Amino acid sequence: MEKLIIIGAVAAGSKAAAKAKRLNPNLDITIYTEDTNIAYSACGMPYYIGGEFEDYHRLIEYSTKNFEQDFNLKIFTRHRVTKIIPEKNTIQITKLEDNSVFEEKYDKLLIATGASAKKIHAKGSELPQVVTLRHLSDCLRIKQFTKTTKRAVIIGGGSTGLEMFEAFWRLGIDTKMVDWKTHLTTKLDEDIGTFLKELVETHYPNSIILNDSAKSFVSDAMGRLTAVELISGKVLPCDLALISIGVKPNVKIAKEAGIEIGSSGAIKVNEKMRTNIPNIYAAGDCVEKKGFVTNRVIWHPQGSTANKEGRTAAMNIAGIESSFKGVLESAITKFFDIKIGATGINCKLAKELGYEPEFVIIKSKDRAGYMQDAKDITIKLIADRKSGRIIGGQGIGLGDIDKRINIIANAISAQNTPEELSNSDLPYAPPFSMAIDTVLVAAYELDKKLKK
Amino acid sequence: MEKLIIIGAVAAGSKAAAKAKRLNPNLDITIYTEDTNIAYSACGMPYYIGGEFEDYHRLIEYSTKNFEQDFNLKIFTRHRVTKIIPEKNTIQITKLEDNSVFEEKYDKLLIATGASAKKIHAKGSELPQVVTLRHLSDCLRIKQFTKTTKRAVIIGGGSTGLEMFEAFWRLGIDTKMVDWKTHLTTKLDEDIGTFLKELVETHYPNSIILNDSAKSFVSDAMGRLTAVELISGKVLPCDLALISIGVKPNVKIAKEAGIEIGSSGAIKVNEKMRTNIPNIYAAGDCVEKKGFVTNRVIWHPQGSTANKEGRTAAMNIAGIESSFKGVLESAITKFFDIKIGATGINCKLAKELGYEPEFVIIKSKDRAGYMQDAKDITIKLIADRKSGRIIGGQGIGLGDIDKRINIIANAISAQNTPEELSNSDLPYAPPFSMAIDTVLVAAYELDKKLKK
Repeated sequence: MEKLIIIGAVAAGSKAAAKAKRLNPNLDITIYTEDTNIAYSACGMPYYIGGEFEDYHRLIEYSTKNFEQDFNLKIFTRHRVTKIIPEKNTIQITKLEDNSVFEEKYDKLLIATGASAKKIHAKGSELPQVVTLRHLSDCLRIKQFTKTTKRAVIIGGGSTGLEMFEAFWRLGIDTKMVDWKTHLTTKLDEDIGTFLKELVETHYPNSIILNDSAKSFVSDAMGRLTAVELISGKVLPCDLALISIGVKPNVKIAKEAGIEIGSSGAIKVNEKMRTNIPNIYAAGDCVEKKGFVTNRVIWHPQGSTANKEGRTAAMNIAGIESSFKGVLESAITKFFDIKIGATGINCKLAKELGYEPEFVIIKSKDRAGYMQDAKDITIKLIADRKSGRIIGGQGIGLGDIDKRINIIANAISAQNTPEELSNSDLPYAPPFSMAIDTVLVAAYELDKKLKK
Repeated sequence: MEKLIIIGAVAAGSKAAAKAKRLNPNLDITIYTEDTNIAYSACGMPYYIGGEFEDYHRLIEYSTKNFEQDFNLKIFTRHRVTKIIPEKNTIQITKLEDNSVFEEKYDKLLIATGASAKKIHAKGSELPQVVTLRHLSDCLRIKQFTKTTKRAVIIGGGSTGLEMFEAFWRLGIDTKMVDWKTHLTTKLDEDIGTFLKELVETHYPNSIILNDSAKSFVSDAMGRLTAVELISGKVLPCDLALISIGVKPNVKIAKEAGIEIGSSGAIKVNEKMRTNIPNIYAAGDCVEKKGFVTNRVIWHPQGSTANKEGRTAAMNIAGIESSFKGVLESAITKFFDIKIGATGINCKLAKELGYEPEFVIIKSKDRAGYMQDAKDITIKLIADRKSGRIIGGQGIGLGDIDKRINIIANAISAQNTPEELSNSDLPYAPPFSMAIDTVLVAAYELDKKLKK
């Protein structure tokens, strides 16, 4: 019986296990994970913390026990894989409970070690109230803290930072957000990012501090966090600090085993999710991806991508040819009633990469103006003068941004020019869009601009 | 100064006038319309009737006076163009107020005569309480009726019928809907259409009568409608009957002038919106279109398309080459909290046209299951076995159907296979979709089915 070992079981790992077993019931599958749980929605953790739902088990798609039973495989949680020995088709595992070490042979290995939260190395950063959110255990610990937290500081204004800002506010915690850039979220250009900041400031005055970061974490005599001191000298009193400055791929054991790491710093795989070493696959947040728009190698960790890569890896492991082609770097975030989305590349990056970006920004409504639910949306659409093609889009507003980012994502995938997009036949009725949707208006205006 | 005459001014006509004037301010433009108003949202009329907003002027994008001033052109409302004389570059107009007749010369002519509601020719169908909804004047008359209407019958279960059913219910009018087919809305296959009927029946029991139609309209001694008698013999008491069985293109004057009418019964135009007669253009609901999926000629009247065609006609009239490529036959309707959408062609039509349709139906949620707002959606995705490409999609549910129909519409435009669609990188976050969106799951399952 062929033996597949999978390291990690959040998104890519658990998806691959289920899929591989369905395709080849004879496969002997063992999963090792450092985590306490498998198959959970990491993206849903801010919503649990914010009280969207009461029972954290709803984040868990499958309990370890049910997963083992349903798919007839073995799972070892709280087990850390410390070494891959390709010459011997073997891995070395530490059982975290008692630090015992053992080895296990594989025929095929899937590395789905994911990513870890980046930390700030500064005075006081080791305080228990200075936290990151990546694993379910982080989530439960933060949830526990929020029962007594009065004031929180979030370092980092990306998607998770924004979602956690909302979660803390919903719990009545006075929250400040600090970002080292001049605007929020790296995916957005400064124009749209500034607009986001203004929207946030309107609803939550004095809550955002830009161009700044944490210098040290101040504690009292009892060793409890009391404030974050910023580089600017500002001191923000708080009893909880969330570091949300991004993630980095977990590649240590792969690298040490001679598995090739790409220019992005993540594991290099081909479209079949194969690494450079035979019988070793990798998928999910620990691998790098191809960016559709630019054909360059990028690292863009995302739950939806991890699921697709897990599926692709499983199919190839089971002997069914399958390819994962790449990503558009799409993202969408809800921040209270504000939706923020982006796809493709932004103007800043486009210039850095040698494109000649041209863009329009259109402010409009998400449905016919006479509908009571009509809400503001602002759409930025970007094309490249050289190729004439759409290369990116960004959107923000109280209205339905998600749909518009999807439309732009599809237009990029289809290598549309703005003219082609402007002629798209999107379904229309007054509760859903203007007669000519804002994205199509943007495409039309951008086409005119390109032809000038 | 070149003179452009435009016949009709709801969507295509008003759009073309504004656009042509912007492109060529020297153009001398005159608009004739039978209607009382120009540039209004016909699609919004059911929402005005249902009380979504109070002031019907919100339907009107531009008053006649403001439009004349802003675009420096002349508009004659309540004027019927009765004849086009291409040999003389002349049209004949009847002023409806006094039935006076006069002629006018043009250099270029744009026919945007739209479509008319189909009527039922049956005993009593001329009663004032037997109405159709097409023009703003119809809308205002129906709104007036609803002030005293207790019971209404709607003949025809298409989009407008459904929207009017909702409007009447919101006004507290006891409403029944009758359709001659075995399920609601022609765009849907029977499986999804039946599901719609069941959803409606759950919320509004005994309100839908299928496989039936109006045989006669019964009136009292005062000549007021009291009931609709159906072909089955059923008698539905009511004081208002709305005939909503579709529309037909207004092509009489075009046909009489020798302008070619296509196989669909609507005016034939090329991609530039030119008819077979030099200097005569046509756009909007009175012209036929090319269907993207099948490359066949179809007639698919829609406000959004009319706007785009009006724009294209204006550009070519102003000497700027522009093409309108065709339509996907996309449609979306809201019915209370239920959203119903379709794009491309359905299985039934696909078979009739010689395709080998294969499909999947996926029932799921529109966002992560643990989000409070997560709602049911059902998606049908159709591909053709011969080409391997996606040819249609349908969706229904309380959740966000609109977004999914958009995604499928774009996939059809891009000539995607299910496999290609399944790898789409759509932006994901728990408030917006499942980690792998239902459409992508459908694409994945359909790909498997195709490869069996």
